[in-house]
Amino acid sequence: MPSVLPIHSLHSDHPLVSENSSMPDQSIKSTNITAVESRVTLQDRIERSGHSGGVLWFTGLSGSGKSTLAIELERRLFNNGYNVFVLDGDNVRHGLSSNLGFSPEDRTENIRRIGEVGSLFANAGFIVIAAFISPYQEDRDRAREASGEGFHEIYVKAALSLCESRDPKGLYQKARRGEIPEFTGISAPYEAPDTPEFTVDTGELDIDKSVTALAEYVAGSFIQQRN
Amino acid sequence: MPSVLPIHSLHSDHPLVSENSSMPDQSIKSTNITAVESRVTLQDRIERSGHSGGVLWFTGLSGSGKSTLAIELERRLFNNGYNVFVLDGDNVRHGLSSNLGFSPEDRTENIRRIGEVGSLFANAGFIVIAAFISPYQEDRDRAREASGEGFHEIYVKAALSLCESRDPKGLYQKARRGEIPEFTGISAPYEAPDTPEFTVDTGELDIDKSVTALAEYVAGSFIQQRN
Repeated sequence: MPSVLPIHSLHSDHPLVSENSSMPDQSIKSTNITAVESRVTLQDRIERSGHSGGVLWFTGLSGSGKSTLAIELERRLFNNGYNVFVLDGDNVRHGLSSNLGFSPEDRTENIRRIGEVGSLFANAGFIVIAAFISPYQEDRDRAREASGEGFHEIYVKAALSLCESRDPKGLYQKARRGEIPEFTGISAPYEAPDTPEFTVDTGELDIDKSVTALAEYVAGSFIQQRN
Repeated sequence: MPSVLPIHSLHSDHPLVSENSSMPDQSIKSTNITAVESRVTLQDRIERSGHSGGVLWFTGLSGSGKSTLAIELERRLFNNGYNVFVLDGDNVRHGLSSNLGFSPEDRTENIRRIGEVGSLFANAGFIVIAAFISPYQEDRDRAREASGEGFHEIYVKAALSLCESRDPKGLYQKARRGEIPEFTGISAPYEAPDTPEFTVDTGELDIDKSVTALAEYVAGSFIQQRN
């Protein structure tokens, strides 16, 4: 049997091709196959899950509570029926970004990759909670560009002195002794967000109240309809 | 109010920390907060969706039909209630891998990143269909390592002569004229899988039959329970 694939529907991952990103809207016909369906759209996914996708980008100092709140919020949202997933150091730094260090350039590339992965998850209908120090505004802005409207910058706010007093793993102590180079807040800069969509102050609120505030923000920002 | 976060639950994305990846199993207590929940597990997600997550890795020559079959299979599986998402040149090469070219090194890094992203999606409970030429066995093996048991290498098989006769975008013609460097099958190698989990021969089967064969493979490989 000769070529049976509709030739105008073949994609390529080669760069010298102007890739056909209008695929979802195409009506592809062929005489020897059943009608070719379009790519599953975000709208299809929203209709199934009842809520839109997007990225909650948690930024803050080491010790501000980003990962703790991310995991708590994930559980809260999951229990409330959302499709939700956490990206954090645990599942990114050992995998996707395992070939990156902590120089400014590598941090930038790390955040760029996470922004792109966040966008993929958002397009799959997920609420992604990305919990990374992400000290540079420019990097966070680029992550926002990758996701567009569905991006929410969340400032997990805590004074450096508070984070340093928490110092759960003695990192600040080590950084003060010069044993950790380029440690955010000590020997590398942290640029607090200028205009975050939401701020949660973990110096003022305990975890439960913080998560409740975040869950209310999500409920107001991501339409959820029960099917 | 002073520090209210349980200090032993704080994660870090800094490298000099032995990161606490046993978080899900920890029982964290504190006097001033409600009990800290664990990270949502893959098992939690399986119980909700009714099926396990994993990666269907489509490899084959340009023009073999990878992307077409990926999009068709995604639609078929989605309509059957699966959580499914396609990773292909359209959504990866312009984003996550936009800073990579097509040298052997860059192809390797591209496939490495996709393998890691596939693993993240699989951990989020998705069946990921990754459709990339991915010409090197070593690279595909590394992608397998990232996902473990949930990885399925699917060989989208079609003779070079057939792919070249399809040549939907004139790529093979250009490659033959030397206008596209390092084109797989012409001026760069393609290593067919030695022991793929499944082979679909698009020289023998039309799209509909190919998708049906793939959907049956998925049904046999990913337990799906109706809740």
